Amino acid sequence: MTQNIYDDETFFAGYSALPRSIHGLDAAPEFPSLRALLPALKGLRVVDLGCGFGWFCRWARGEGAGSVLGIDVSERMLARAKAETTDGAITYARADLETPELPLGAFDLAYSSLALHYVENLERLLKAVHAALAPGGRFVFSVEHPIFTAPSEPGWREIGGRKMWPVDGYLDEGARTTDWLAKGVVKQHRTIGTYVNTLLHAGFTLSHLEEWAPTAAQMAAHPEWEGERERPSFLLVACGR
Amino acid sequence: MTQNIYDDETFFAGYSALPRSIHGLDAAPEFPSLRALLPALKGLRVVDLGCGFGWFCRWARGEGAGSVLGIDVSERMLARAKAETTDGAITYARADLETPELPLGAFDLAYSSLALHYVENLERLLKAVHAALAPGGRFVFSVEHPIFTAPSEPGWREIGGRKMWPVDGYLDEGARTTDWLAKGVVKQHRTIGTYVNTLLHAGFTLSHLEEWAPTAAQMAAHPEWEGERERPSFLLVACGR
Repeated sequence: MTQNIYDDETFFAGYSALPRSIHGLDAAPEFPSLRALLPALKGLRVVDLGCGFGWFCRWARGEGAGSVLGIDVSERMLARAKAETTDGAITYARADLETPELPLGAFDLAYSSLALHYVENLERLLKAVHAALAPGGRFVFSVEHPIFTAPSEPGWREIGGRKMWPVDGYLDEGARTTDWLAKGVVKQHRTIGTYVNTLLHAGFTLSHLEEWAPTAAQMAAHPEWEGERERPSFLLVACGR
Repeated sequence: MTQNIYDDETFFAGYSALPRSIHGLDAAPEFPSLRALLPALKGLRVVDLGCGFGWFCRWARGEGAGSVLGIDVSERMLARAKAETTDGAITYARADLETPELPLGAFDLAYSSLALHYVENLERLLKAVHAALAPGGRFVFSVEHPIFTAPSEPGWREIGGRKMWPVDGYLDEGARTTDWLAKGVVKQHRTIGTYVNTLLHAGFTLSHLEEWAPTAAQMAAHPEWEGERERPSFLLVACGR
């Protein structure tokens, strides 16, 4: 089973205090780019893999989605998601993305934000997502970029008067343990090639791959994001069944 | 026009002394991986974009390709390619990949090794390659990996006792000038996302994306390649029309 760090008390408290946990999608700088990859949602049956507090589920319904299923492994996150949702067309279910049990051909859109880099068995999950989509269905997701997850000691360094992001271990895939909000958070590093080839082997057709960077307008509003143009932190992918 | 550094006397002398210039494909550590992406060549009409000394053209004929056209911008390289080729089914032509003029639907396989990162107008070239392929045709190529081309000062650094490759400027695409074999070699840095999306927009279907790393056997034979598992230097792509 994937490490369920989100139910760790310290981690949950820290995560709950992040801007994106308080303000939702508006505080997720990459969301406009991810949103641009989505189909028109009107009437669609949507599943959100790693739904967290349910921000996307509620937003998708606001955009006209017919129904939304949010799944997550964290009881704490699902409890808050349920408490903040009154819409009967949104349902939440506790499930581990390592052992997905999704109904066959039941969704038109699968969505996942920053969850797949916790999953050890990506191949099993992607095959399940493919089977859970109806023909013509779409899968749109974000993960932490491999340049971000690779290093043995991730962080900025001042080198020759420039802000740089030293990379090592890029080709050695597997678990990376970092201290982020709590000690010992385990994420799975894998290359872009592995993400793409695992999707293709699962039967998906790739339609877009994006190494996210803030726009000029976002940079002007958030000078503290400066480093985000030096190395990508998010990888955004859109594909179809 | 793309900088034609290969006709620079100093560069050409240095390039001609590289193992892969002396020993051909056997000295290109990534070639086995690239070769694994090729279709069976028997009877195929092949075009090699940036054919250099013609090593691949001659190899492809040896594998049974029906005809091979090698194109390159470098007169020096083409002169040696022609001098080393006696096979009438191989032809060489001088052409700039910035202004491709390829016959329509004339090839079953387009191949390119480490040439596309010199090309400024990638979109125009990929559209021309797509149009030059017959239905069902394949395009297999390698380029320098964006992690390799991005940095303002590419190179290894010893950081915290580890060999690391500092990255900056990854999201800022465009020309990078480095001193490699000669001063002022200009290469075009672009993200993996841009390579992939430009292919998709040109009409290709992606079938494989690989961030090349040496195998355990290659590492054992070449301990000096150690860094090649820390960060990728080559990106290999296979796609279909």
